[in-house]
Amino acid sequence: MIVQKYKDMLSGKSVIRQLSEFATARGAEIGYENVFDYSLGNPSVPVPREFTEQMIHMLETKDSVALHGYSPSLGIPSVREAIAASLEKRFGLPYRKEHIFMTSGAAGALAHAVRLVTEPGDEVLTFAPFFPEYHPYVDLAGAVLKVVPPETETFQINFEAFEKMMGPRVMAVLINTPNNPSGVVYSAATLRKLSEVMTRKSVEYGHDIFLISDEPYREIVFKGVDAPCVSAFYENTIMCYSFSKSLSLPGERIGYLAVQPGCREAETLVNMCGQISRGIGHNCPPSIIQLAVAEVLDLTADLTVYETNKELLYRELISLGFTCVEPGGTFYIFPKALEEDAKVFCRKALQYDLVLVPGDTFGAPGFFRMAYCIDTVKVERSLGALHRFVETEYPGRV
Amino acid sequence: MIVQKYKDMLSGKSVIRQLSEFATARGAEIGYENVFDYSLGNPSVPVPREFTEQMIHMLETKDSVALHGYSPSLGIPSVREAIAASLEKRFGLPYRKEHIFMTSGAAGALAHAVRLVTEPGDEVLTFAPFFPEYHPYVDLAGAVLKVVPPETETFQINFEAFEKMMGPRVMAVLINTPNNPSGVVYSAATLRKLSEVMTRKSVEYGHDIFLISDEPYREIVFKGVDAPCVSAFYENTIMCYSFSKSLSLPGERIGYLAVQPGCREAETLVNMCGQISRGIGHNCPPSIIQLAVAEVLDLTADLTVYETNKELLYRELISLGFTCVEPGGTFYIFPKALEEDAKVFCRKALQYDLVLVPGDTFGAPGFFRMAYCIDTVKVERSLGALHRFVETEYPGRV
Repeated sequence: MIVQKYKDMLSGKSVIRQLSEFATARGAEIGYENVFDYSLGNPSVPVPREFTEQMIHMLETKDSVALHGYSPSLGIPSVREAIAASLEKRFGLPYRKEHIFMTSGAAGALAHAVRLVTEPGDEVLTFAPFFPEYHPYVDLAGAVLKVVPPETETFQINFEAFEKMMGPRVMAVLINTPNNPSGVVYSAATLRKLSEVMTRKSVEYGHDIFLISDEPYREIVFKGVDAPCVSAFYENTIMCYSFSKSLSLPGERIGYLAVQPGCREAETLVNMCGQISRGIGHNCPPSIIQLAVAEVLDLTADLTVYETNKELLYRELISLGFTCVEPGGTFYIFPKALEEDAKVFCRKALQYDLVLVPGDTFGAPGFFRMAYCIDTVKVERSLGALHRFVETEYPGRV
Repeated sequence: MIVQKYKDMLSGKSVIRQLSEFATARGAEIGYENVFDYSLGNPSVPVPREFTEQMIHMLETKDSVALHGYSPSLGIPSVREAIAASLEKRFGLPYRKEHIFMTSGAAGALAHAVRLVTEPGDEVLTFAPFFPEYHPYVDLAGAVLKVVPPETETFQINFEAFEKMMGPRVMAVLINTPNNPSGVVYSAATLRKLSEVMTRKSVEYGHDIFLISDEPYREIVFKGVDAPCVSAFYENTIMCYSFSKSLSLPGERIGYLAVQPGCREAETLVNMCGQISRGIGHNCPPSIIQLAVAEVLDLTADLTVYETNKELLYRELISLGFTCVEPGGTFYIFPKALEEDAKVFCRKALQYDLVLVPGDTFGAPGFFRMAYCIDTVKVERSLGALHRFVETEYPGRV
């Protein structure tokens, strides 16, 4: 019989998806260039030319049986080696290929990470505001996701609430820095304190507690911002990385999971990923994409547009009287709405063709997210609409 | 804490993998050309030139943001449409894009199919000889795989045993035709009878029973063999397809799941796949690979070498006195060993640098598998070794 659990999920339509559909429909009416669609976190810059050249070069010159052949279940060894070398050089931790498992993007990495360290009924803690897809990743692995309420002054960690929630069933803590949706980068002080609490609780409960670090925005960090390497602060860290944003190829589904070399049984964890894959039908990311990214590991797409957009938006929001933590990276900003219910606020904004996402979706009611991975020209044109929206709906503020 | 279940799986090393490692090691000693490695089912012919040309064309001409952008979670609509049209034309069933879900190869399709129709503890029946990876696909979804013993005269279905095992907890029947490891194609009579039993049992138990049809070898069918479309015999069929063998690109992990248009709630099942994906981190196969295969749907690699190899091997095996069902397709043959314990038989064969896989791995002790997806020249050279092996170890037979 059809399984009801998955059928029921169909009715829970994503708010972001609905808003994006509104934007598309409205675009058909008035021209998409006139809709200020801040709903979706889709990279908007081209892939580095070197990636395309490498793909074409391999297709033109390599033996096709070898090029398109099966990858071993943990990934192509030369690719895993190149990634380990790049991580070691950059972060100073002794990564080897034995610590790397190739995945279908960060989603694949997270699905494996959760299964590595949780039994059904175990708890995973994450911090609001958080990426809502963490729910299915954790829930459908049989574990329970619990959300620590936000520290809304800075969007660092609310340690008081965190410590209270660190019960004996918590087997993993899941963080995302630079953060979707706040754009905030966790400071070294935050990561040190997080590590201290987790270490203390591991000892108290007599079992390892793993840190799962979701890092798809690692390369999008703005000038002057210090973005410390999460894995350097805590040995039992499982890094989940995606090239989607750094190389601007989200559709090619390529990323990796990297277990901190100092983690207990690090190599066993990586080998276990191969076994988990057999059950979830993951296997490996495509051979040709693995081989191509290995050639451009130290490159990124031109990510400067995101900082330009952030500057424009942040300045305008502040001048309009918004309360807003300045993003240190990503292509998101997460201001406080101008009325208590952010859903009402965002609904009003739609009348000005501004598509904003209420913070409720991210576990932080009262705030809203703007994904500014769009052309700078459009950001500039949207500022007038933003001004009109605030002036008309919340008079007396400007 | 590290999950013991996956850790335990590490010790259960695959027999096929061990044999393949032996072949590689022995090849380093005496030259790989002198090892007759029949262990692995890896395609040995080039991808069609049109696929490579299409990839290069897209990389050279398409806007990279669009080309490498996110695919919707069910797959790129134009690709799903092209697959539906191709299936409709070929099999005469009214497939539409709403019946198609793009997957990471047949493994991805099977992982979704099992989750669609089984709750933990439900049973899935399959027929020996069977592909051993069905175990992790089913076990790790929480269901129970039960194996119907083989009908060793023809490797069609042992219906007597099947009917006895069709209890009320059986929610799905999983078949693979053309079959790995036997090479046998299920006849129309077999499929009709299978459908009749499943329909009768569905009525008896008052719930749907789904047929999951694993079809990676669908395009490798030899001259004069009738390979009927499984989905045409039973409405509640979920087809799991892979382009790995037909296009010879197993490393690119591309396939699809197609729900029979007459299946109850067919479109709901496809939409549910998108929800299952959210939990297992599957998302979608790479955009560029989806787009490229859509352009070569009605092509295959040059698969004739497999039939040439089958002819050579089958003739030789029969002349050496083996009992063997003649394969109707695939690149496998599954003869009876010359002594009761096929593991002992295969171990002896290694002394002649013949790498054969004991049938125990496939739920059919006493038989052995040869994967003849290798150069014909090598098959020819292996015949002498096969002759010497039989003559020396089993004298009086030749």
